[in-house]
Amino acid sequence: MTRKILVLPGDGIGPEITAQASRILAACQARGLDVEVEEGLVGGSAYDEHGEPLPAVTLDKAKAADAILLGAVGGPKWDKLEDLAKRPEKGLLGLRKNLGLFGNLRPAITYPQLASASSLKPELVAGLDIMIVRELTGGIYFGQPRGIEVRNGERVGFNTYVYSESEIERIGRVAFEMAQKRGKKLCSVDKANVLEVTILWREVMERLAPEYPDVELSHMYVDNAAMQLVRAPKQFDVMVTGNMFGDILSDAAAMLTGSIGMLPSASLNESGQGMYEPCHGSAPDIAGQNVANPLATILSVAMMLRYSLDEPALAQRIEDAVGKVLDDGLRTADIASEGTRTVSTSEMGDAVLRAF
Amino acid sequence: MTRKILVLPGDGIGPEITAQASRILAACQARGLDVEVEEGLVGGSAYDEHGEPLPAVTLDKAKAADAILLGAVGGPKWDKLEDLAKRPEKGLLGLRKNLGLFGNLRPAITYPQLASASSLKPELVAGLDIMIVRELTGGIYFGQPRGIEVRNGERVGFNTYVYSESEIERIGRVAFEMAQKRGKKLCSVDKANVLEVTILWREVMERLAPEYPDVELSHMYVDNAAMQLVRAPKQFDVMVTGNMFGDILSDAAAMLTGSIGMLPSASLNESGQGMYEPCHGSAPDIAGQNVANPLATILSVAMMLRYSLDEPALAQRIEDAVGKVLDDGLRTADIASEGTRTVSTSEMGDAVLRAF
Ligand SMILES: CC(C)[C@H](C(=O)O)[C@@H](O)C(=O)O
Ligand SMILES: CC(C)[C@H](C(=O)O)[C@@H](O)C(=O)O
Repeated sequence: MTRKILVLPGDGIGPEITAQASRILAACQARGLDVEVEEGLVGGSAYDEHGEPLPAVTLDKAKAADAILLGAVGGPKWDKLEDLAKRPEKGLLGLRKNLGLFGNLRPAITYPQLASASSLKPELVAGLDIMIVRELTGGIYFGQPRGIEVRNGERVGFNTYVYSESEIERIGRVAFEMAQKRGKKLCSVDKANVLEVTILWREVMERLAPEYPDVELSHMYVDNAAMQLVRAPKQFDVMVTGNMFGDILSDAAAMLTGSIGMLPSASLNESGQGMYEPCHGSAPDIAGQNVANPLATILSVAMMLRYSLDEPALAQRIEDAVGKVLDDGLRTADIASEGTRTVSTSEMGDAVLRAF
Repeated sequence: MTRKILVLPGDGIGPEITAQASRILAACQARGLDVEVEEGLVGGSAYDEHGEPLPAVTLDKAKAADAILLGAVGGPKWDKLEDLAKRPEKGLLGLRKNLGLFGNLRPAITYPQLASASSLKPELVAGLDIMIVRELTGGIYFGQPRGIEVRNGERVGFNTYVYSESEIERIGRVAFEMAQKRGKKLCSVDKANVLEVTILWREVMERLAPEYPDVELSHMYVDNAAMQLVRAPKQFDVMVTGNMFGDILSDAAAMLTGSIGMLPSASLNESGQGMYEPCHGSAPDIAGQNVANPLATILSVAMMLRYSLDEPALAQRIEDAVGKVLDDGLRTADIASEGTRTVSTSEMGDAVLRAF
């Protein structure tokens, strides 16, 4: 059965990096992967064309796809759009919500070849391998009521941080299962000393724990988690948290590795359909210059093969190819260091293809 | 006119560290500082005695004081209290709210003597000097409605992230003025691509900017701010943000210095009344052992002299004394390193007194 993949290049460096990832996808097809690849518009580029960051045609294609590969969205060109609903980010949020992609997996891994790129001392990040499981379709990102309105003669802005037991349980199970497959340690991050919604979060995690007796569950306040990530990140295996805390902590954790240009992510729904994207953003400042790092997007293809297409052998091949290229000393500008050779976006793509 | 200082030791290591700070206060009195010092209970220790984390008698004393010195609150002993309103943290939050201490100043400074204690590479943190201005009496910490209730047959937890224009303007002015006195750079942190409340935040900051033409205002999304703090913290001078983001970012920033045991904080209201406390917590694991670092609390006294008591010369004397003690190679266990002498809490207090 031919599976469908939708590639959404998006904005900024999105088109350049997804172009390289698409070449890898094509190479997988040449090796027998039975997929049909389509493209679509999302984010600012979709707004420019259709007046909407998530046009109906894109959403329809996304719903029909087994997996989606996204570049990145956003840029200063659209930052001044008065109507929040038209901003590029809403395209991304709309895809997450409409496809029910509640389970966001954000690995923070230090590549041995790149450990010195970290701003942390090498011994603190060598071998780092954290998986952050972030809830992606609830919490304050989507909570109602929300808005800006006049109260007592002045404007007031408000958003609602809300989770139901079933939403918490669903993401909790993803995290416990992930921990079972990894180091068997799960740290749930909340602010249960202040926020009621996270008291419920903590309770549900506690209630699930006995079903996963091989996993050691701990809890940490979000402020402490931010500190501990900086102080001693290797204490963590799997972390699970809500949408907003997950946004902050996963970016901090990614940056610890010093090579955010290397980190893929997956966003999954209950039927295994997934959207895959690099952790980094659309980097408008370097867009169109053929210097961006395509490896996070290429590694997102590997994650897609593993989680949505059940092709672990091909996934491993891609990961090995990336490792080989790093071993050979090739680097895009963001991860360049003394003694390595700086290559362009497309040269990096060439090299991975050769090693594949 | 004799001014009033209220010392609230709190829980965990609170009593040990405030004891050393009180000795410094007494030494200031001996040098002519005209203050009356009282003590009170707050947090878990107040709950144990009065059944409330913020007894009326403590609140009354706090209202009557010109300045408050707080140790720390909280500990595992009270973590299981079903009623959130009785938890130690509510004592702290109650003081902030009842006294209107909306302006939280959290410096993240690397002491030259301690730069090697950071988990970051020394060149990235040497000379680091960030001031985080956190709004402390609004936002999601205090927003209504909040709670846990049954909806459609399951429990749902919810909190409200809310700011009015006047609340934003008030903290904005504190931050702009702080930037004017420092490096003239202000970075406002929000999540304006997702949250309406922070769209209003950004608007108000923009509206204030022309009144402070010497200050360069920038905006950053909170996830990026967490990354940038890890990647290149010295790019920041003053940062301003809401209660929740400020909680997370100020702790991350403090940890960057590698010596959170050194960092004081101030929480001010509109009339200059202030509460001063170390950035670190109550550290129940080492409580009662005379090993905790009292320097953040001693430096909180210096902040108090500067911001609430208008005694900058005495403040400077304390800061110089702390610098001298570090130069002499004395360290509590948390900041000890090769070639330094590890001392106890009270020995550190002795040393600062001698140098004062
Ligand atoms: C672009 C933005 C809306 C998005 C988010 O906040 O979720 C991004 O930061 C991310 O983490 O994927
Ligand atoms: C103890 C807790 C309620 C408090 C907060 O979250 O504000 C603390 O973390 C702080 O930053 O002062």
